[in-house]
Amino acid sequence: MPKCAVFSIIDEARPERLRDHFVLVIDVLRATSVMVTALDNGAARVYPVETVEQAFAKRERHPGALLCGERKAVKIEGFDLSNSPSEYTPQAVAGKELIMTTSNGTRAILRAVQGGKTVGLACFRNALAACRAAAASGLDVAILCAGTNDKYSMDDVLCAGALVHRLCALGDFELDDLANHALALYRLGKDDIKGALAQCLHVGRVIAAGFAADLDYCYAQDVVQTLPLWQDGAITTLTEAK
Amino acid sequence: MPKCAVFSIIDEARPERLRDHFVLVIDVLRATSVMVTALDNGAARVYPVETVEQAFAKRERHPGALLCGERKAVKIEGFDLSNSPSEYTPQAVAGKELIMTTSNGTRAILRAVQGGKTVGLACFRNALAACRAAAASGLDVAILCAGTNDKYSMDDVLCAGALVHRLCALGDFELDDLANHALALYRLGKDDIKGALAQCLHVGRVIAAGFAADLDYCYAQDVVQTLPLWQDGAITTLTEAK
Repeated sequence: MPKCAVFSIIDEARPERLRDHFVLVIDVLRATSVMVTALDNGAARVYPVETVEQAFAKRERHPGALLCGERKAVKIEGFDLSNSPSEYTPQAVAGKELIMTTSNGTRAILRAVQGGKTVGLACFRNALAACRAAAASGLDVAILCAGTNDKYSMDDVLCAGALVHRLCALGDFELDDLANHALALYRLGKDDIKGALAQCLHVGRVIAAGFAADLDYCYAQDVVQTLPLWQDGAITTLTEAK
Repeated sequence: MPKCAVFSIIDEARPERLRDHFVLVIDVLRATSVMVTALDNGAARVYPVETVEQAFAKRERHPGALLCGERKAVKIEGFDLSNSPSEYTPQAVAGKELIMTTSNGTRAILRAVQGGKTVGLACFRNALAACRAAAASGLDVAILCAGTNDKYSMDDVLCAGALVHRLCALGDFELDDLANHALALYRLGKDDIKGALAQCLHVGRVIAAGFAADLDYCYAQDVVQTLPLWQDGAITTLTEAK
């Protein structure tokens, strides 16, 4: 029986714990919601980088690429797009390469690719599509929550629970402790994600930064079929047949 | 309003996050349950040490002390007591000094004292006594779960929820994300701790090592008033007036 493990912070997901796993990285608010949106709207690929300096350096080699991301939830000076999914329209991103750095999500992706056999991006919006691919792989599954500044974040763990819930509907998995707890929390909150996350500290920061409208967008479940996957040094799309 | 934060693994509890906090360390199965029992049964003090070598070296300087602890849940060769609370009877420990090393709990204590202003030990058995002292301090409270081999462990997080539940009955606290989630999980499971922890991987290891009888003992809530506290390089007792 394949296993399913959940990690609430990046440090907990040591590379050896991800070895030979299908890793799903979650940063609900908002990096993976943004990347799923960007690729669903036709972006060619996303290069995740850790620092602002690396982003500018990367664009030297990819002159047409858009610089995307945030620090403290707001757009970085000199960048093209912030970390709000509302900016990642087909008009803005179709056919484009994106270079992205965020406080938590891009670091989590770069950790995942150090250990995982396959690395995909998940959020509420593509939860079922992500789980179908993970379950079909036959691999052990690791769900890596980006967290917020290396702390446990309710939004990501609730979404991890959404993934565990779907995985267990698709097949039998041996759950680790946080997978079991995330599943219990998701069952409590699944019909009202906004209510379940009303006390989440990071939600408060997103609202304070002026992005309250992004919340409902990021909480919508199973509305896109796009699964961003790490391939050849970038994140590209695997669109599941409907 | 004081804050209450919960950390699920030692790495997450960076010393600067514990600064000026009343820190409660939890290792339900079984280090803090054992230390609460030992001090409640009259042990003079407990010296937590990280390695087996440090334990033997410490006894050189404390010739009458008992060597206590486990690796992989069983007694260490040359040690006096294992990590089963059933061995820590008044006959065995009254008036004695204990030198203790365990896989997770003693490391968590040594991390806590790097940052915390006050460090106490908690488990289900002394949950209310621990919370009364923490709430009375007026300090921000940090609950540090030892976890299992640097992974999230259901038993410790459920006990953290038991503490958050009691703290919130004693006063107003601003909860962080894991404090909120631990509280929700405890509310789900509080009337049947054994059932709530049936899927906990570490419970399976304790049973496999032959210590199933310790579980009911460790799951009993609010049955002792003893709060072990770090003072002058060792853990000693603060017994609350009943």
